[in-house]
Amino acid sequence: MNDYNFAQKAPQQSVKQLLAHYDTVRQTTLSLANMLSPELCQIQSMPDASPVKWHLAHTTWFFEAFILAEYDKHYSTFDSAFHYLFNSYYNSLGAQFPRAKRGMITTPNLADVLSYRIYVDKAIHQLCTAKSNNNEAKLLQLVVLGLNHEQQHQELILTDVKHALWQLPSPPAILAAQQEKTLSLDEPEPLQWRTFHKAIVEIGASQYPTDVLNTHNSHIQHFFYDNETPRHEHLLHAYQLASRTVTNGEYLDFINDGGYEAAELWLSDGWAWLQQNHIKHPLYWRQINNSWQEFHFIGYQTLNLAQPVCHVSFYEAMAYAQWANARLPTEFEWEAACASCQPTPNKQSNLLDNRQFAATPEITPFQHLLGNCWEWTRSDYAPYPGFTPLAGAVGEYNGKFMCNQYVLRGGSCATPRSHIRHTYRNFFYPHMRWQFSGIRLARNVPSNKANNPNHSSIKTTTGRSL
Amino acid sequence: MNDYNFAQKAPQQSVKQLLAHYDTVRQTTLSLANMLSPELCQIQSMPDASPVKWHLAHTTWFFEAFILAEYDKHYSTFDSAFHYLFNSYYNSLGAQFPRAKRGMITTPNLADVLSYRIYVDKAIHQLCTAKSNNNEAKLLQLVVLGLNHEQQHQELILTDVKHALWQLPSPPAILAAQQEKTLSLDEPEPLQWRTFHKAIVEIGASQYPTDVLNTHNSHIQHFFYDNETPRHEHLLHAYQLASRTVTNGEYLDFINDGGYEAAELWLSDGWAWLQQNHIKHPLYWRQINNSWQEFHFIGYQTLNLAQPVCHVSFYEAMAYAQWANARLPTEFEWEAACASCQPTPNKQSNLLDNRQFAATPEITPFQHLLGNCWEWTRSDYAPYPGFTPLAGAVGEYNGKFMCNQYVLRGGSCATPRSHIRHTYRNFFYPHMRWQFSGIRLARNVPSNKANNPNHSSIKTTTGRSL
Amino acid sequence: MNDYNFAQKAPQQSVKQLLAHYDTVRQTTLSLANMLSPELCQIQSMPDASPVKWHLAHTTWFFEAFILAEYDKHYSTFDSAFHYLFNSYYNSLGAQFPRAKRGMITTPNLADVLSYRIYVDKAIHQLCTAKSNNNEAKLLQLVVLGLNHEQQHQELILTDVKHALWQLPSPPAILAAQQEKTLSLDEPEPLQWRTFHKAIVEIGASQYPTDVLNTHNSHIQHFFYDNETPRHEHLLHAYQLASRTVTNGEYLDFINDGGYEAAELWLSDGWAWLQQNHIKHPLYWRQINNSWQEFHFIGYQTLNLAQPVCHVSFYEAMAYAQWANARLPTEFEWEAACASCQPTPNKQSNLLDNRQFAATPEITPFQHLLGNCWEWTRSDYAPYPGFTPLAGAVGEYNGKFMCNQYVLRGGSCATPRSHIRHTYRNFFYPHMRWQFSGIRLARNVPSNKANNPNHSSIKTTTGRSL
Amino acid sequence: MNDYNFAQKAPQQSVKQLLAHYDTVRQTTLSLANMLSPELCQIQSMPDASPVKWHLAHTTWFFEAFILAEYDKHYSTFDSAFHYLFNSYYNSLGAQFPRAKRGMITTPNLADVLSYRIYVDKAIHQLCTAKSNNNEAKLLQLVVLGLNHEQQHQELILTDVKHALWQLPSPPAILAAQQEKTLSLDEPEPLQWRTFHKAIVEIGASQYPTDVLNTHNSHIQHFFYDNETPRHEHLLHAYQLASRTVTNGEYLDFINDGGYEAAELWLSDGWAWLQQNHIKHPLYWRQINNSWQEFHFIGYQTLNLAQPVCHVSFYEAMAYAQWANARLPTEFEWEAACASCQPTPNKQSNLLDNRQFAATPEITPFQHLLGNCWEWTRSDYAPYPGFTPLAGAVGEYNGKFMCNQYVLRGGSCATPRSHIRHTYRNFFYPHMRWQFSGIRLARNVPSNKANNPNHSSIKTTTGRSL
Repeated sequence: MNDYNFAQKAPQQSVKQLLAHYDTVRQTTLSLANMLSPELCQIQSMPDASPVKWHLAHTTWFFEAFILAEYDKHYSTFDSAFHYLFNSYYNSLGAQFPRAKRGMITTPNLADVLSYRIYVDKAIHQLCTAKSNNNEAKLLQLVVLGLNHEQQHQELILTDVKHALWQLPSPPAILAAQQEKTLSLDEPEPLQWRTFHKAIVEIGASQYPTDVLNTHNSHIQHFFYDNETPRHEHLLHAYQLASRTVTNGEYLDFINDGGYEAAELWLSDGWAWLQQNHIKHPLYWRQINNSWQEFHFIGYQTLNLAQPVCHVSFYEAMAYAQWANARLPTEFEWEAACASCQPTPNKQSNLLDNRQFAATPEITPFQHLLGNCWEWTRSDYAPYPGFTPLAGAVGEYNGKFMCNQYVLRGGSCATPRSHIRHTYRNFFYPHMRWQFSGIRLARNVPSNKANNPNHSSIKTTTGRSL
Repeated sequence: MNDYNFAQKAPQQSVKQLLAHYDTVRQTTLSLANMLSPELCQIQSMPDASPVKWHLAHTTWFFEAFILAEYDKHYSTFDSAFHYLFNSYYNSLGAQFPRAKRGMITTPNLADVLSYRIYVDKAIHQLCTAKSNNNEAKLLQLVVLGLNHEQQHQELILTDVKHALWQLPSPPAILAAQQEKTLSLDEPEPLQWRTFHKAIVEIGASQYPTDVLNTHNSHIQHFFYDNETPRHEHLLHAYQLASRTVTNGEYLDFINDGGYEAAELWLSDGWAWLQQNHIKHPLYWRQINNSWQEFHFIGYQTLNLAQPVCHVSFYEAMAYAQWANARLPTEFEWEAACASCQPTPNKQSNLLDNRQFAATPEITPFQHLLGNCWEWTRSDYAPYPGFTPLAGAVGEYNGKFMCNQYVLRGGSCATPRSHIRHTYRNFFYPHMRWQFSGIRLARNVPSNKANNPNHSSIKTTTGRSL
Repeated sequence: MNDYNFAQKAPQQSVKQLLAHYDTVRQTTLSLANMLSPELCQIQSMPDASPVKWHLAHTTWFFEAFILAEYDKHYSTFDSAFHYLFNSYYNSLGAQFPRAKRGMITTPNLADVLSYRIYVDKAIHQLCTAKSNNNEAKLLQLVVLGLNHEQQHQELILTDVKHALWQLPSPPAILAAQQEKTLSLDEPEPLQWRTFHKAIVEIGASQYPTDVLNTHNSHIQHFFYDNETPRHEHLLHAYQLASRTVTNGEYLDFINDGGYEAAELWLSDGWAWLQQNHIKHPLYWRQINNSWQEFHFIGYQTLNLAQPVCHVSFYEAMAYAQWANARLPTEFEWEAACASCQPTPNKQSNLLDNRQFAATPEITPFQHLLGNCWEWTRSDYAPYPGFTPLAGAVGEYNGKFMCNQYVLRGGSCATPRSHIRHTYRNFFYPHMRWQFSGIRLARNVPSNKANNPNHSSIKTTTGRSL
Repeated sequence: MNDYNFAQKAPQQSVKQLLAHYDTVRQTTLSLANMLSPELCQIQSMPDASPVKWHLAHTTWFFEAFILAEYDKHYSTFDSAFHYLFNSYYNSLGAQFPRAKRGMITTPNLADVLSYRIYVDKAIHQLCTAKSNNNEAKLLQLVVLGLNHEQQHQELILTDVKHALWQLPSPPAILAAQQEKTLSLDEPEPLQWRTFHKAIVEIGASQYPTDVLNTHNSHIQHFFYDNETPRHEHLLHAYQLASRTVTNGEYLDFINDGGYEAAELWLSDGWAWLQQNHIKHPLYWRQINNSWQEFHFIGYQTLNLAQPVCHVSFYEAMAYAQWANARLPTEFEWEAACASCQPTPNKQSNLLDNRQFAATPEITPFQHLLGNCWEWTRSDYAPYPGFTPLAGAVGEYNGKFMCNQYVLRGGSCATPRSHIRHTYRNFFYPHMRWQFSGIRLARNVPSNKANNPNHSSIKTTTGRSL
């Protein structure tokens, strides 16, 4: 069996180290909010998005509801009204304030929520310190889960704010424009196809080490969600994967070739979606005097043809692939390829690390499988064979969404870098576009090549041959 | 001709006095906003409502667009983006930011809007002062129009904030609870019917005095909108009008008698509305453990049976009247009766004067025709015979809304007192409930009584007999 | 008092004569259905329309539910399932099959419904004959009401079938094309304005003669609905009325002048309606290769510029009037003018009389106030002063619709001629267009003319001067 | 490799035999229509359904558009208007009449459509006979495709008619009630779990024999759609499959246990669907006086607890499985199990064979995998590895629907028996219920059993062990 985990030796870490990590993650969230006015933190630009203030409170509630309420007998809640307001979707924990109305929550205001964060942070510190001698593995694992949860919301804060700003006719820049120029000079590499042979591969995350003492440290290093398990064998047929994602320039060719008017390129549901919503280009594009612009955190910019196309729906990704005589990869094809390439998450382009606001042109093959833009796969979001959700209310975290959604892989420039891994499964409905979602093509191997292992330009080391 | 205007001697007032009035009105708006957080000023709880921040900016834009842009050659706009954002519905002045998305305007923020107000206030002062020697009657009339416009928005700020707070499961009190207790002790007077005989009455506002010098002062004292003109003769058939509005207690009888389940009481459209929206009581009522509460600016309170029922739709008003074997008055019946009663606007219960938050029980007949709650009439909002809208873009102020709406009369506890008059025509769609709208009944005079002028308990002095 | 009723001496008629009239009306309905296939009788092209089969059954049910069930102790219902299926909106008589699903009623089929008609006709004959000696005035009046009800549905059958056929890309002609040519040669008269002076006029239908013996005969001759009562005095201010309706040619000028793109011409609700529904011309118009066509019962025809424009909404009528520097008349202005002109219903153009399918060009002034096309008025549909609905379930016939609708006057080429009268009030929602609805303009009298009775070209004989 | 095809020796068949088959299939469709009135053939009870008349015409159009128009130079179309009206969704062949309005097609009427069928049948006979010497393999394959297409619509006619009848408060029986009694006596077998071991199995349909001469006969015998190809290897992990589908009685236990109120049992989308549509039981169930009934073609019947539950959505199937501590099988698990069981399609219960109207209780294990009710699988409808759609317009047949739908397997009592096979992939959106869709459970093998091949009660012969 082939183990393609990026395992590092789990360092001997104390609860102190966990809490240091806790503080770092929590502080990162705050640093995002600090860029924004109370008004911008208040609004909800569509039902799929949430207000920043809500994100700030909900991530805090997560620690309160799953940890403090459960493990701290002396914990007294900050405000009993919050349980209803900031429970996202955990039916096991009670009814929830209607999702589409989150923008209506004027009380608590932003200052109240920031106080709530401090209050809970203090309680978490006290609780974890108090329990540090008791090997409360479950508790500490939940802290790690809560931090990963918070990182997911860091990305959502960014994409929700981007969508909120875009509501305005002239959105203000909330990041400086300086980095853009550096980026735009890069030229993407010519697209290459790498062949992967028929093989049985292992898919999904490995189990944690069983050493109880270091469980939480291992969790920090090797965290995964339940939906990435169990690691299991999967038979892959031979396929080819593109060495980089589709660029804005290539996507513009598709538009100029009439891609949005050609029904035969589209899934039936995609064509209906396009017509009902009068879709003619990616979400944040606009045409002014025959010139294309794209909206970024630094405001509208001339479209950079070298950058990966971003903010496209699954439907658009599928139509583009059809136009390009290719297809999307399955999530299994993508994961196996990523495992064999062993890329590191893109550091250059990351909002949290360096306030870089957009995906980077790719100048070497398979450079940015991780951390540039989410890549739509052809796979619906479904349980792996033998999947069992986490026990208790956290079991609602992932499992109940396994329907009608499609898997994206790789992480984007808005994903915290430490949150990115090759087994990570993101998922959205096929019409959604407000995430940094792009397109990497795949295709079937011509049958004469498929049978000839010597043909492929790049031999995968993944999987055993059959 | 019968003049039922509450005319006071127009005091000799200078432009200085006009500007003093300007400052008072503008300051009153600010004092409302000062009660509220930036977050509460940001949100729009439904398409019919607007954010407080938008009200603050739009009322300012009104002075800029209709006065400064027109009369001040040297005026330089505060921010050119505002023209699109804060134009409400004046197509003559260009396209408008979509009404339903006003809550999405995060830029400018609240502080910016407050600066905008100061900037425009200063420019208006300068312009008016500069023009004060030139008898710029039209300009000064527009200032008065702008102030009346602002007063309308003061009321909307209150009702929109009430609706916004109500979105929360436990809305905070934004006013102190003290006054409520005083009020609740009052007992309403027993309902009496006053008979009004068949007569030709004059309806609508009188023309302004033609003395140019004092035009603007006359306008302040005797302001009216174009929709109140021309004053004209109207033939009224004999009718009876109730001496007070329907109380919460009476309305509760209607509910307990199955009023919301009895299709035969409802207009066909009203019944459809009720069923689609699962309406079972007035907007701000709720039932907790068999006890009725009503939401006020001081939070949820036990339902006060003595207070006028408020926040009901035209449909509910009509159904209640049907149940009570009565009907709603026409706006002409209402105006003629009010002219004959000569009430003064309710001072006790007024949000702007004394932060009193709800309509007052009526303890003497016809005590609160003005300034307690808006009273639905049976009249659709239509032009008076010979109506001509104002010239120019301000002509869009009223005329184009004369369809599908019903007239309310009298002003409410949320209406600025100086804005209340007996010729005032308010109008809303028949399903709307977020204004302080109540019910005063009318009925036909039994034919034997109608022919006998000696029969009526209270003889009207209005109109000439036929 | 001025009596503008077209009263004729009520002939001495027996119940036999009433039943002969009954047979005539019922047979006319059948003759319409006989033109149509079972499939065309089945469908419902929109929620506002009903299937022909449903009309055939519902009009029959009306006699069953209001007369046979009430007055005939021995009556046994044809099929007990019909009461639920064919009750239109009488809540007093029980729940109703959902209106929007009437096209789903496959059982009974058309043949069953025709048998139902025969069954009820026989029972009505027997009952009326049996009661003929008893002066059962109420019963016989209900028969007359049922026949007028059936005549309303004859018109609805025509307009609903027209709308159903129009769903097809190439609708078949269901009438022969021959008459069209005759009509199209006529030229409309030049539009003239007739002035009507300020006056108190009588509006509404007179009471029936009180001679019981002939009540039902009187009812046939002088039938009116409850919504036309009570006859009452109304003060009219001076106005002018156009001598004919607006033609297709004139309406085309409005279109070509950008009428559908000019927001300032439209009511606010009208503009919203137009934009949401992408309205660019009257309902049954289309443009093929720069040439305008109109859909008629004889199929698509080149637009006849001389014919009255038809199938326009209240919103379009209002916008046209605004564009033409005029307005719509109130229903009172219209009725008073019609009473003074004493026209007879247009015989030339009537679907039931001679299968003529469209409104006729008007070649003399005020020729076709009656029986050409319905004319939108500016008046909302509201009760007359002192209005009382009929007692019992028939009280739901009219009263509960007095909201959000606008009055049309005059009757159309699809209205049975004997059903047309100058006091008749038709009413539809302002967006509706599938009736034969057209436009007659009115305007205010310039003030110098209004005061000078000698000025007007045509002196009205209606009303007394004030 | 394991071949689990039910191959029979392809008999030497001539074109004559193909045409005999053609006549049989076409006649079967007619025999369904003959049970129905023109009115019932006209209506469309929801956008997902189509009128029977439309099915009759569309299946005929399929032969015209794909065969006659392509291969018969002398063919003259029956009516050129039909191409637009009866093209379902083939964008390559031009625009289509709006799907949701198919019920509005009154012209042609039913008689016209029946003539159209005769006209095309004759032309197909002539063409095929003329080409019989030329080995026109492609043409004859298209005839076979057209017949399979027609068989799909036979099933849709039945399910659409069932849905149409159900619109009525008291739907008539269109089949006799006699068979029902026979069925209801059967008792279902106790549910057993059969274990299938981890294996690589072959999924999908085998290629046709390459012998050109008999291609069309082979196609008749071994027909498959492009979505069943290519046959490919798939790695299955060990699983267990239930020996029969869930019964009405078992499903009633789920309801009585609060299944429809327990959010934790439902997919997130399923719970939203349930709440928006107030779903409380399977589509055709109703409760009268605490007694459950189910609507069948013989009218409402007391719920038969022994019959398989039918007309449930994917969401309901998933929730039931969750409640039962099980899951749904993937389509691959299902197919492999079916291949190993080699059942024959249920003959007892088939609408076309013997007018039996509902699924049969299963009295022996794995008796009715085929031809009883469609069984929801956990698999989204996606292309098999290496899938290529058919060339040309027929390529739109399947591929463009591979999104947002879930696969059902097995065929139902409404599926023509010759149309049923174990590789057949049916697919519907997860909320749809008007097909005969039921539930067969699967579950993971407990890990100790999974590793022990001796444990399983029933050893599968499918697949090779790994």
